[in-house]
Amino acid sequence: MIYLDNSATTAVCKQAADKAYAVMTAQFGNPSSLHSLGIRAESEMTEARQQLADLIGAAEAEIFFTSGGTEANNLAILGAARAKKRRGLHIVRSAIEHPSVTAAFDRLAEEGFEVTVVPPAADGSINPNDVVAACRPDTVLVSVMLVNNETGARFPMDKTAPRIRKRSPLAVIHTDAVQAVGKIPIHVGRMGIDLLSVSGHKLYAPKGVGALYCRKGTRLLPPAALGGGQEKGVRSGTENVPAIAAFGEAIRALPPTAESLARFTALKERLLEGLQSLPEVRVHLPLDGVPYVVNFSVMGLRSETLIHFLAEREIYLSGGSACAKGHASPVLTAMGLPPAEIDSALRVSFGLHNTNEDVDGLLAALRIAANTLTHKR
Amino acid sequence: MIYLDNSATTAVCKQAADKAYAVMTAQFGNPSSLHSLGIRAESEMTEARQQLADLIGAAEAEIFFTSGGTEANNLAILGAARAKKRRGLHIVRSAIEHPSVTAAFDRLAEEGFEVTVVPPAADGSINPNDVVAACRPDTVLVSVMLVNNETGARFPMDKTAPRIRKRSPLAVIHTDAVQAVGKIPIHVGRMGIDLLSVSGHKLYAPKGVGALYCRKGTRLLPPAALGGGQEKGVRSGTENVPAIAAFGEAIRALPPTAESLARFTALKERLLEGLQSLPEVRVHLPLDGVPYVVNFSVMGLRSETLIHFLAEREIYLSGGSACAKGHASPVLTAMGLPPAEIDSALRVSFGLHNTNEDVDGLLAALRIAANTLTHKR
Repeated sequence: MIYLDNSATTAVCKQAADKAYAVMTAQFGNPSSLHSLGIRAESEMTEARQQLADLIGAAEAEIFFTSGGTEANNLAILGAARAKKRRGLHIVRSAIEHPSVTAAFDRLAEEGFEVTVVPPAADGSINPNDVVAACRPDTVLVSVMLVNNETGARFPMDKTAPRIRKRSPLAVIHTDAVQAVGKIPIHVGRMGIDLLSVSGHKLYAPKGVGALYCRKGTRLLPPAALGGGQEKGVRSGTENVPAIAAFGEAIRALPPTAESLARFTALKERLLEGLQSLPEVRVHLPLDGVPYVVNFSVMGLRSETLIHFLAEREIYLSGGSACAKGHASPVLTAMGLPPAEIDSALRVSFGLHNTNEDVDGLLAALRIAANTLTHKR
Repeated sequence: MIYLDNSATTAVCKQAADKAYAVMTAQFGNPSSLHSLGIRAESEMTEARQQLADLIGAAEAEIFFTSGGTEANNLAILGAARAKKRRGLHIVRSAIEHPSVTAAFDRLAEEGFEVTVVPPAADGSINPNDVVAACRPDTVLVSVMLVNNETGARFPMDKTAPRIRKRSPLAVIHTDAVQAVGKIPIHVGRMGIDLLSVSGHKLYAPKGVGALYCRKGTRLLPPAALGGGQEKGVRSGTENVPAIAAFGEAIRALPPTAESLARFTALKERLLEGLQSLPEVRVHLPLDGVPYVVNFSVMGLRSETLIHFLAEREIYLSGGSACAKGHASPVLTAMGLPPAEIDSALRVSFGLHNTNEDVDGLLAALRIAANTLTHKR
């Protein structure tokens, strides 16, 4: 199997899966229970919380576990904007956000918030000047993705956050860092971030767990998950201890980002070089993109056809993001690409297990596809 | 170890834990991915959905997976009431609901709904006549727990639902069945239920998964989890496939309810008989209670002290529910018990693994506690 869809989800690493198994069967207590079995479950969570806090330069008390990236994004956006409703009604996002961000903004628009959407440049990146220009004194929330899930475009939050604060002193700054955490160096303090969303299953932890970093003092009005008051009332419900503990293990097992980024860069170069030998490939490379996402179109071949063709050969990748599930990519559409190019878009996303042979295998299969499938049409 | 806290959480059964492990490491695809790895993940979910549907007499399309019981309760209550806001503003719940139900009702009260709370009888049970009497023509939601988490009191929804419908034709009928599903026979159709909440980790599946049964045609306005539109838009976010698949396995592994209820009844009788030999025990037995929950107070011994004393001997149980985490039980308070009795309340909740020896072990430890701890005071 050649798995090149690591931005959709990753295989859980052995350390994390073993941890989840042990917690499910042995340390299975309810962390709210007063007895020692409950206390041991609680300390499994504390350990994972510390792991994640260390990874992003936060304090342990600033980490809130959720059921995943979507819940973290919902919680951040609905929670922060509603908490500031009396101070201002203007909110800003980019046009290339994940559906869990855009849907939350839509909900806020229904509630009376005024939304400014910052479009991407033709290369898929968001220009910091455009974000700053959108900010006003009554802006209470700014949300821009750190690494885009379809193109790999990076947003320079470290340089932009101080400029946002200058124009919008009320604004809470949120970033969806689901495609960034554990993959590029992140320090919430140095980057000037108030709220940051993470997902476990994008970094070799199980599905069903994510987290929200919430800078001390940032107020949130939880939209739901009302109940037992777990996670300091930010996210009620019995904690997913096996997945949370596995999340911690997965973070512990990550190699240094410098090391993995160097490997991904080599894989990306190998892929780009190989793509040149294919007829009519258009690569969608942002100027400042991460090396673990490569988006390109093999013109004349619809992505859906190609995905099935490759899957038959046990090669897995996607066209656009998994969340769009067959719909035209809103990100590539926002970039203004021609429809034919969007219909043919493929996304390769590298993970820690990928090798040169994986890239070569994909290239060989693409060559066969270009010869046979285009011929058959 | 003697684990008698199965209403707080259960150890994941081997079949379910093995399934979760296999899905985490092998069938790890994103169910939204178009390729075959995604499709296989999707069919893992379909199988689990069918298992749960069969268990409660529902159709597969009426099952929506959530991150747990709390999310299911929030979704049901906030979603159903808000969807009917223009038809009526009156909603009814019992006084012995889980915090995830009461908190959702509180939120609705802030939004302008009028809430009627039906108090329990002295034995902890909710009188169906009181629920029916609370219903009005403008009632849009009625929520009564099927089995109470602290006392085991059952609510006869099958006989009450038709009477609710007669008085409140607009009303959506919800039941929190977290302590009931997989333990007593349930048939949503015959019971007249529109919405029913389930939690995985109460029935030997992992934490991090629950479900909402939503009768075909019942409209919900999702409070959050806005995004990729998974679970037909009712609950967005990448599905927790390992836990969902394990949920299905756990259901498959359940013995027939008649069999386990008979075993629990024998354990309960053994416990009640043994408690008689202890000085000053007050048992809180609802007239129609399930046999797997036994609530009692050893007078003069605070529950917290006793829980720690027992935990040192590897005997685990709770005082009230885990979710109350040290606060005075709202359920026992609503029953009008004297404070000293509430402070001493203990809940034994049986699971499939419990034996006569577990009951005898608990009784022996309680006898020592009654002799030594009360003496020390």
